[in-house]
Amino acid sequence: MCESKYFQIAVAVAKRGTDTWTNPQVGAAIVKDQRVLAVGYHHQFGQRHAEIDALAQLDDISQAQGATMYVTLEPCSHYGKTPPCAKRLAEVGIAEVIIGQLDPNPIVSGKGVAILKAHGIKVKVLGDSQGLNVAYNYFYQHGRPLVTLKYAMSLDGKINGAEKKRTLLTQTAAQQDVQKLRRHQQVILVGEHTLSIDNPRLTVRTSSMVFPPIRAALVHHIDQVDPKSHLFDESAPTWFFSEMAATRPLPKNVQVFVKPRWTPAAVVQHLASEGIQSLLVEGGSHLQAAFIAAGLVDNVVVYISPMMLGGAGLPAAIGQSLTSQTQFETPTISVLGPDIRLQTRKV
Amino acid sequence: MCESKYFQIAVAVAKRGTDTWTNPQVGAAIVKDQRVLAVGYHHQFGQRHAEIDALAQLDDISQAQGATMYVTLEPCSHYGKTPPCAKRLAEVGIAEVIIGQLDPNPIVSGKGVAILKAHGIKVKVLGDSQGLNVAYNYFYQHGRPLVTLKYAMSLDGKINGAEKKRTLLTQTAAQQDVQKLRRHQQVILVGEHTLSIDNPRLTVRTSSMVFPPIRAALVHHIDQVDPKSHLFDESAPTWFFSEMAATRPLPKNVQVFVKPRWTPAAVVQHLASEGIQSLLVEGGSHLQAAFIAAGLVDNVVVYISPMMLGGAGLPAAIGQSLTSQTQFETPTISVLGPDIRLQTRKV
Repeated sequence: MCESKYFQIAVAVAKRGTDTWTNPQVGAAIVKDQRVLAVGYHHQFGQRHAEIDALAQLDDISQAQGATMYVTLEPCSHYGKTPPCAKRLAEVGIAEVIIGQLDPNPIVSGKGVAILKAHGIKVKVLGDSQGLNVAYNYFYQHGRPLVTLKYAMSLDGKINGAEKKRTLLTQTAAQQDVQKLRRHQQVILVGEHTLSIDNPRLTVRTSSMVFPPIRAALVHHIDQVDPKSHLFDESAPTWFFSEMAATRPLPKNVQVFVKPRWTPAAVVQHLASEGIQSLLVEGGSHLQAAFIAAGLVDNVVVYISPMMLGGAGLPAAIGQSLTSQTQFETPTISVLGPDIRLQTRKV
Repeated sequence: MCESKYFQIAVAVAKRGTDTWTNPQVGAAIVKDQRVLAVGYHHQFGQRHAEIDALAQLDDISQAQGATMYVTLEPCSHYGKTPPCAKRLAEVGIAEVIIGQLDPNPIVSGKGVAILKAHGIKVKVLGDSQGLNVAYNYFYQHGRPLVTLKYAMSLDGKINGAEKKRTLLTQTAAQQDVQKLRRHQQVILVGEHTLSIDNPRLTVRTSSMVFPPIRAALVHHIDQVDPKSHLFDESAPTWFFSEMAATRPLPKNVQVFVKPRWTPAAVVQHLASEGIQSLLVEGGSHLQAAFIAAGLVDNVVVYISPMMLGGAGLPAAIGQSLTSQTQFETPTISVLGPDIRLQTRKV
């Protein structure tokens, strides 16, 4: 089996870590004499790293002596929740480490490699992330979370009917896809109007997560939010971006951030300061327009339902204007039951 | 070669008639001793029918004696622009006629078959139009033209930017597809606002047609239409649906129909009375909403351009409200350069 095949094993196993929160998904494979001795991955935020997980799968730690480790991300160099992996690899006698990509965090990038080399370990960096950790990489490159705008609209570009109640646009397959999309986001944001009309749960209902996405809403005054809002239940943390401070007690899962005016840029800046790497903006219409106008939409996922909602329906992205059109790539298309899904990113 | 293969030949050759106007596309194949002796089709409105065209391709008319004719539509029974085909087939000694579908016009349907049978010709009706003449069939079944709504919109459901000038949404491949779509329509309709902002030509620029689609516009007062409008050029006939009569001379290609209030239903009714079988509604936004609200949209073709036009852009279908959502089938999808095309019909 060639080198790239071992690396692909590490990539595949990395994806099994679905609850890593702001930590990256990482996979590792230990290979000796053209045999894969063990694989490991980072299972969950706060738990052991992929390299250590792989070593733990060996029948005997002495097997690591002279072996090659394939790992999708540069081994860490710092004492955090776990001791540095680079040191541990040297201790157990790993002879060569083949790394997918360097850590994108400029403060630590290259330091893991330096430790390995200082211990006489042969190192090769492939410079290939294989699509893992898109938001994690984006965050360290741009200093802010990757923003995905998601909405469902009718054939005539409406996200809701004329009445002030929620219009169900998509069917089961698209609804399940939304759950999948949410699972990979750290924060899900809605506007005040969506909060009151839809009373959304904003939870991931298809899998139980220790670190579910934080539910967030942009409101004028937290005191005016209906106490029966699902966001007050304790199924996930909730953040409110409010223009007025709360004067009533709130459940312990709720945090309120107060600022006289919350723009998309201010929200994104605040999330960045909290270390949030990915934001899913779910609407409504005015919040969509504000993020588009601010140039803060990196990815778009649109579900198109084959119906017409007519001339009085609520159009997608209404409100703040855009000085010049924003170009996106040709979307990738999928058919989900009767609905169409388009996904694209800013050119 | 089996029977269905000969029929497929007739279907394929029918499609070569691209300028048949309100006449159906019809193809015919003459078969004897398992050999295709000749094929023919209706080339152009006013010219000979497919059956006669096929007979004319025979080396000698005596070859028709005892032959089988495959023809996509029931041979005609009336003296119109040409003598009845059914009689001619009997005269030349055709022994058997295999027909795709009966003429949908209830006044003549079955009469061609009756003439053939009366002359001792064996007749078989397949009851299969193979997708030919969708609008022609619709017209005779429903007594009105088949209405297709076509528009291009951005990812955020806008058909134009905020400025009162035309936003070019789609690229070459989608633009060429529009030309193809127009070629099969008898009337293309726009609203007053589109007329003044876009000054559209509404012509088929990819092929020269003797019977191009009639260009139509719904206006308040024909006198207020800019004399420099392309619709006044003589490249195709133009119909105005105006609420006020013209008081100034108009080019001879222009007709004005006056009514105090033109609703979509009134326009469609008028087109039906003129024998028009297909209508393409190209916009703008208010005309779209009016047709949707009237329940007069049978087919939809949407081109989605991967761009955002923002919160002040002009949404698709704005204005008249719809009491309940209209359901369409799961769209068929094509990728046209960077743009996506969705096509669907009412459930």
